Amino acid sequence: MPEEKGRPALSDATRGRLLFGGDYNPEQWPEETWHEDVRLMKAAGVNSVTLGVFSWSKLEPEPGAREFGWLDTLMDLMHEGGIGVVLATPTSSPPPWMGRLHPDTLPVTEDGRTEWWGGRQHFSHSSATYRRYAAAITEDLAARYGGHPALTMWHINNEYCTFDHGDEAAAAFRRWLREKYGTLDALNEAWGTAFWSQGYDTWDGVLPARQPHYMRNPAQVLDFRRFTSDMLLECYVAERDIVRRHTPHLPVTSNFMPLWFGQDAWRWAEEEDVVSVDLYPDPRDPLGAQHGALVQDMTRSQARGPWVLMEQAAGPVNWRGVNHPKPRGLNRLWSLQAVARGADAVCYFQWRQSRQGAEKFHSGMVSHAGEEGRTYQEVKRLGADLARIAPEVSGRHSGADVAVLHDWHAWWAGAQDGRLSQRVDHADVLKTWHRALWQAHLTTDFAHPEHDLSAYRLVVVPQLYLLTDAAIENLLAYVRQGGTLVCGFLTGVADEDDRVRPGGMDARLRELFGIRTLHEWWPLDAGESVACEGFGGTLWSEELEADGTADETLPYKGGELDGLPAVLRKDRAWYVSTLPEPDALRDLLARIAAGTGVRPVLDGLPEQVEAVRRGEVLFVLNHGREPVTVEVPGTHRDLLTGTSVTDRVSLGRYDVAVLRP
Amino acid sequence: MPEEKGRPALSDATRGRLLFGGDYNPEQWPEETWHEDVRLMKAAGVNSVTLGVFSWSKLEPEPGAREFGWLDTLMDLMHEGGIGVVLATPTSSPPPWMGRLHPDTLPVTEDGRTEWWGGRQHFSHSSATYRRYAAAITEDLAARYGGHPALTMWHINNEYCTFDHGDEAAAAFRRWLREKYGTLDALNEAWGTAFWSQGYDTWDGVLPARQPHYMRNPAQVLDFRRFTSDMLLECYVAERDIVRRHTPHLPVTSNFMPLWFGQDAWRWAEEEDVVSVDLYPDPRDPLGAQHGALVQDMTRSQARGPWVLMEQAAGPVNWRGVNHPKPRGLNRLWSLQAVARGADAVCYFQWRQSRQGAEKFHSGMVSHAGEEGRTYQEVKRLGADLARIAPEVSGRHSGADVAVLHDWHAWWAGAQDGRLSQRVDHADVLKTWHRALWQAHLTTDFAHPEHDLSAYRLVVVPQLYLLTDAAIENLLAYVRQGGTLVCGFLTGVADEDDRVRPGGMDARLRELFGIRTLHEWWPLDAGESVACEGFGGTLWSEELEADGTADETLPYKGGELDGLPAVLRKDRAWYVSTLPEPDALRDLLARIAAGTGVRPVLDGLPEQVEAVRRGEVLFVLNHGREPVTVEVPGTHRDLLTGTSVTDRVSLGRYDVAVLRP
Amino acid sequence: MPEEKGRPALSDATRGRLLFGGDYNPEQWPEETWHEDVRLMKAAGVNSVTLGVFSWSKLEPEPGAREFGWLDTLMDLMHEGGIGVVLATPTSSPPPWMGRLHPDTLPVTEDGRTEWWGGRQHFSHSSATYRRYAAAITEDLAARYGGHPALTMWHINNEYCTFDHGDEAAAAFRRWLREKYGTLDALNEAWGTAFWSQGYDTWDGVLPARQPHYMRNPAQVLDFRRFTSDMLLECYVAERDIVRRHTPHLPVTSNFMPLWFGQDAWRWAEEEDVVSVDLYPDPRDPLGAQHGALVQDMTRSQARGPWVLMEQAAGPVNWRGVNHPKPRGLNRLWSLQAVARGADAVCYFQWRQSRQGAEKFHSGMVSHAGEEGRTYQEVKRLGADLARIAPEVSGRHSGADVAVLHDWHAWWAGAQDGRLSQRVDHADVLKTWHRALWQAHLTTDFAHPEHDLSAYRLVVVPQLYLLTDAAIENLLAYVRQGGTLVCGFLTGVADEDDRVRPGGMDARLRELFGIRTLHEWWPLDAGESVACEGFGGTLWSEELEADGTADETLPYKGGELDGLPAVLRKDRAWYVSTLPEPDALRDLLARIAAGTGVRPVLDGLPEQVEAVRRGEVLFVLNHGREPVTVEVPGTHRDLLTGTSVTDRVSLGRYDVAVLRP
Repeated sequence: MPEEKGRPALSDATRGRLLFGGDYNPEQWPEETWHEDVRLMKAAGVNSVTLGVFSWSKLEPEPGAREFGWLDTLMDLMHEGGIGVVLATPTSSPPPWMGRLHPDTLPVTEDGRTEWWGGRQHFSHSSATYRRYAAAITEDLAARYGGHPALTMWHINNEYCTFDHGDEAAAAFRRWLREKYGTLDALNEAWGTAFWSQGYDTWDGVLPARQPHYMRNPAQVLDFRRFTSDMLLECYVAERDIVRRHTPHLPVTSNFMPLWFGQDAWRWAEEEDVVSVDLYPDPRDPLGAQHGALVQDMTRSQARGPWVLMEQAAGPVNWRGVNHPKPRGLNRLWSLQAVARGADAVCYFQWRQSRQGAEKFHSGMVSHAGEEGRTYQEVKRLGADLARIAPEVSGRHSGADVAVLHDWHAWWAGAQDGRLSQRVDHADVLKTWHRALWQAHLTTDFAHPEHDLSAYRLVVVPQLYLLTDAAIENLLAYVRQGGTLVCGFLTGVADEDDRVRPGGMDARLRELFGIRTLHEWWPLDAGESVACEGFGGTLWSEELEADGTADETLPYKGGELDGLPAVLRKDRAWYVSTLPEPDALRDLLARIAAGTGVRPVLDGLPEQVEAVRRGEVLFVLNHGREPVTVEVPGTHRDLLTGTSVTDRVSLGRYDVAVLRP
Repeated sequence: MPEEKGRPALSDATRGRLLFGGDYNPEQWPEETWHEDVRLMKAAGVNSVTLGVFSWSKLEPEPGAREFGWLDTLMDLMHEGGIGVVLATPTSSPPPWMGRLHPDTLPVTEDGRTEWWGGRQHFSHSSATYRRYAAAITEDLAARYGGHPALTMWHINNEYCTFDHGDEAAAAFRRWLREKYGTLDALNEAWGTAFWSQGYDTWDGVLPARQPHYMRNPAQVLDFRRFTSDMLLECYVAERDIVRRHTPHLPVTSNFMPLWFGQDAWRWAEEEDVVSVDLYPDPRDPLGAQHGALVQDMTRSQARGPWVLMEQAAGPVNWRGVNHPKPRGLNRLWSLQAVARGADAVCYFQWRQSRQGAEKFHSGMVSHAGEEGRTYQEVKRLGADLARIAPEVSGRHSGADVAVLHDWHAWWAGAQDGRLSQRVDHADVLKTWHRALWQAHLTTDFAHPEHDLSAYRLVVVPQLYLLTDAAIENLLAYVRQGGTLVCGFLTGVADEDDRVRPGGMDARLRELFGIRTLHEWWPLDAGESVACEGFGGTLWSEELEADGTADETLPYKGGELDGLPAVLRKDRAWYVSTLPEPDALRDLLARIAAGTGVRPVLDGLPEQVEAVRRGEVLFVLNHGREPVTVEVPGTHRDLLTGTSVTDRVSLGRYDVAVLRP
Repeated sequence: MPEEKGRPALSDATRGRLLFGGDYNPEQWPEETWHEDVRLMKAAGVNSVTLGVFSWSKLEPEPGAREFGWLDTLMDLMHEGGIGVVLATPTSSPPPWMGRLHPDTLPVTEDGRTEWWGGRQHFSHSSATYRRYAAAITEDLAARYGGHPALTMWHINNEYCTFDHGDEAAAAFRRWLREKYGTLDALNEAWGTAFWSQGYDTWDGVLPARQPHYMRNPAQVLDFRRFTSDMLLECYVAERDIVRRHTPHLPVTSNFMPLWFGQDAWRWAEEEDVVSVDLYPDPRDPLGAQHGALVQDMTRSQARGPWVLMEQAAGPVNWRGVNHPKPRGLNRLWSLQAVARGADAVCYFQWRQSRQGAEKFHSGMVSHAGEEGRTYQEVKRLGADLARIAPEVSGRHSGADVAVLHDWHAWWAGAQDGRLSQRVDHADVLKTWHRALWQAHLTTDFAHPEHDLSAYRLVVVPQLYLLTDAAIENLLAYVRQGGTLVCGFLTGVADEDDRVRPGGMDARLRELFGIRTLHEWWPLDAGESVACEGFGGTLWSEELEADGTADETLPYKGGELDGLPAVLRKDRAWYVSTLPEPDALRDLLARIAAGTGVRPVLDGLPEQVEAVRRGEVLFVLNHGREPVTVEVPGTHRDLLTGTSVTDRVSLGRYDVAVLRP
């Protein structure tokens, strides 16, 4: 969100191009390979690499030492090759000496086990020692390379994700709580410690979410998750501020894992000049493209504009049970999908596949098969494609009329142990609703429930178990001002302290939908469905009593809930008390959207085809293995082929057309 | 067992009523809610609440402090409302300051992990510190409220269940072993330490059942389980003795979890004035009613008379994977089933559903939906029902001619890691046999194998892997004196030290059944069955050689055991070497029972209907969702409806008739 | 491998007999039982027992004490009974006082948990304290019994298998690494520590494979596995050297677990006079006989001659989920199978089934049913059978023309967390290929990839993910010199440091098979198969580009790999890039073997029959429950029945013929 703060932006790094490249870990290779790398990068159109992500032990081989020579060489080499450098602070993987000399820097699990060095990300966010060393190496990196002409952006740490339950984290948690609550009374009230005799008489008595004998206090767990996100953010901000001091003109980012449970990415995005994400759909997942679309929509929404696909895989990853390569064409297809949905950078982990280490079976842009391998050959083709379309898409907006609401705090609160159904998972429900919209060919943004929603014609809440009063008022105002709202089950149950609202659902929301009484929740078992008028519901159902004000209801049919409302609409507010089967949910949302005037990107699209507009450019993507012909009214130029197409475009397997009117 | 000791009894609390109410945790609510609570309690016929179960941190917010004012107010308020109070010692959930100041009070798991505060029941039974604090708060509670007119009973702690493997528990275990064995030689002999080089040369060398490199010594594990039950019992007795000193006229209880593995409830019941239990069948479990019947029969047998249903749920619980509410009528049905099987108190966890904490999705008598919610409305109806029938049932006996034997020590010993089949579980086998009797409409007691069995016409031993010599002699004497005995497989295998008896089964028992040699046990795999004459067997089979004295045998058919005896009868002693399929087991037991003159409660009962006599009153319960008509010879008055019924009674879904001749 | 070193050999213990007996743990029994045991042993033809395996706490009840009296008595008793004694050092299960006084002797798991005493094998291989005590008791045992006339062999420890990640193990690991690598630079290079910032600046910074935050360094894990095997071997060698000093004329062994992951048995076998193994196929496993054949072939290959079946079960074991007894005849069948495949000793764990302890449900030669039990009666029959055939088989060779290659280092390296498919398991693949050869009635040896292979007509490499340069050169030379080589997928991927070889597969091997480029690996999901010309493949497939030099290719059909080579043959070198379905693999290998002139043991064998030659004797084993007639050209004498058979032999269920021309 640079515009708002006068901060540098992604456009300062792209300068009209689409960035193309990836993590580059030359420490693993002899110097002759570096020159070979530059040759292959240039041949593939690579214009950006990320250096230094895992270089701490190379840069600081013993405490306080500095070895910059090799990096000097590489920065110069990249510059000579015309390749920009995103320089990483190496703080995600401290050198072995850190844990050896300072065991206080090692994280501790909820059941008291130390996480030793020998992998990566083995640092405690709360460790003063870790932070001191991290600041020092960041300072020296920024001082040395801040003025280097190859440098285009800063990459802080990598995939922040480490929880800690140790003693230093406990002390930090207490400080965080003290700042939040001021008094112990306020904490006791917010956590409901009157139950189960958990009243705290001193701050020192409060623990991180360590393993108890029986179920944890869910409000404690919720705050611990908030605290963890905040502490990791503190680590980020501390390093960001150092590099900003040296290079106020360069944008700063830290790469998210997609829809990762541990980070409140809305809050994080506010602290970033550039929002970047890592994205690894399973090539075998029939819904891989939808998963990609979701992450891309969410990242674009966090960025409020173009964003960076910081990591993807040119072939297989190596952390699944079975890791599949990408069939011919899929890497290109999914890369162009990201650009369609707003990416101005298509990057990979990593440039050259490792021969050693824990990720040597994770693919690279250059695979073990080398230059002649299919993987590199396809990367090369993609580089040329990106260069062709860059002038028409870089920096352009990719908008939507529909917003899907998501909030990490609601996710965290709803994920408690003692919930009514362990089968209900916020992220799964979110994906299911987004998929229905995606399959209806409706482009969506994501938004936080307290964001300004007035620009959207339709707002969809798959599930927000926790809603603050401000969020509820925001939703009410949105509907009041003419917006259409669709809410799924288990929304508005708890307040921001995870306190169940009287009646089991906020009274204002009940009134909004025309619900008098929520008698009981009826979770459904695996394989169980409930009949509703015109469709089947899964996962959940509710024993609702309407108040007679609804304009439309679809009742449950048969069973214990026979005749009770499954779906209610009162004016422009819809409540869906079950999870309709996929086709039913798609049709319901398409119907509601049509009622608000929102239409699919193209009419009559086959199921396997995705269409997305970015600025004036229309992307048409064939996710199928069979060729397809798509109707596209009018005449366009296909930027990829340079040919002109009229009224219809034919796409081969995994093919893409990028059409300019 | 108050009669035997001149101790106060449950009747001192019920005084001709059926108690109705539940755990009340007013600490969670503002004072205005308390008055609302009294109003709703009175409207629902609530006459008993349990206070203080989780109030320790409220009563003793810092070490040694006392805050009784709020409890004074509540005791008075209850008294004014005509509601009796079962006062709990709050010792199941120590305040956070206890673990903070005294980490020695925290339990340690078998693999060395501390169980931190933040949940509940995080106390070490062996901790002198914990016991000192527990005694002090108990003393002060008893002194302050012992004379309060609202007080009707004491409730010590709550669901004792915490294992501990830490150093203080190790020292206590050694003391316990020293007392049991006297000498190390005796321990070495009992534990068979000659195997695997486990001979102890000092008491200090003996450990709790901590995690070893490979399988534990099963006799050590058995003693550790005995020790744990005894140590928890010591905690109970210590608190009980304090309150008894102050209130010798009031009965004392501690609520069991149903059929819980960790407590020898036969032994515990001897130390209780009132036996109480918590019972939570899954509303979706088609065998939920049978599970209820089993727990009710067992609790009544432990109490040797009326007992207390201390906790059940008015709706869903929140600790299963998927937690279902109770369909309309089920709460009433299952509550009246408990009364039919001897309960003089029908209580809930908890009165008002929490808005905060780990159990806020566990239902209350007043749910989140409040007074208008279906849950409370059904509670109200039940309260009226109980008041109607109380005069005819409270304090009355609910007897049986059949006894099922169960012993925790046999369960513990049989649950060892290195057993022949992990598929064989004592509790499952027990449930299967009880279910067969229940489905045959035969009312059953439970008994310990060393109890006097002479009152029963039929004694059933589903499985007692471990039998002491005294128990074996008891069974032999029972048969000798005319009783009929049916034993399932894996009975009489081990002595009280878990030493396998020569021949793999006690020689006296083999002679009793007519078995010469038990060649091999043949456990069956999941999905595997073995054909026997007239039925199929599952789970287990045995390669037996008969000695030619049996009066009746049913052989295995086909397979490796073809022609060998599956079932033997010699005179009145039956041995069943496999687990007959449910219908076959039901029919076999019905046939044997008929031979002893034991008949079903009513003839011709449909499968979905349960009938139980309590004193002169006949309960007829329809567990089905379809209406049903049941033949009941003669004319009765239905205490619930006040109407008269002749020869047959019609019951709607989940309906109950309580018939008085 | 005694011949090579002038060391005593198994023949020194057998002296023309087949040893028959088992572990004997008389400490568990009163002295009168010992005399009963001798009577039963003699009746059953037992001529060898193993004493002392778990006797440490009996021999050294407190630190430094010695109690030999009971063992003196037993040694004499055995000698008087004509039964030889294999004397064990008791060091696999230290007495409780060891852990109590020296917690440093207890192993620590990868996540920091102590493995306490109370089971067995709770010793740290790196503990100086443990080693000191172990040496002292070994010394005293050897001094006392070295000259006893009953003593025939030494049995060191038992099933060495304990990992340790504690601090003393860490120090030992560093010493081991220092010796291996010399410099930290060499270690950093070999482990690829440049990736993920794992460069070590001091030896002190190196850890055992303790649990990290995220994936471990696979080269570290590989070296840790090597180190563990070596440290356990050091323990063995230390004790061996002590007993050798006292009894240079007696052979020494330590019993392996079959195909156990943790020990490099090729390396271990070099240090043993006699190779012995424990073998426990599941009686219910339809492939139990093949599993037996594999272990027997491997043990014989490690021994390079006759070997000892040190442990098997006469009936059930007790460590599976469900433990089945052996049906009548199976114990005899599987015992004779072992003799057919080279065993000169058929022994059991244990002589008399325990009444106490963790293994009391593990069978003995004398079961709980005692002398009259079926188990002992069958043991007795087997004893007589062994005596009958011993003169014609003891010491004789049992050879093969086919070698299957196996290497623990390849297994270890391939088992890393971050591999492409967790479904690929070296041992499973090895078993599948061996099974195909076994089902084709081809007798096989096993060999290490660096062994001299010139004696074999056919060498089969199911999967050797890691191959050293020496191994590759050995394979190339083997083919060059006329041998036929068949390699399965994932062979030759990594070098000895687990560094992926350029191209993903060694270039020399690619050239050998006619492969230009290995583009991508395509692992297959569970239930997935890939069509190839003439057969289906499972588990794995590969995107290969041939170089045009192959003499024969079988292509993939359909799917992403359509038309690419699934199987290549270039001259006498075959590469199989998938796992053919069992029948296809059997047929392929039978075809290739036939091409090399290798033929089945007998022609036209039914599937259920196994035939093996040992010296001049032909074993024919019916693994089916149905009788069968087998054509055996010519006239033979059946050593078991003493009858003469011509051209065909008839075998009942589980029956065996041992035929001498």
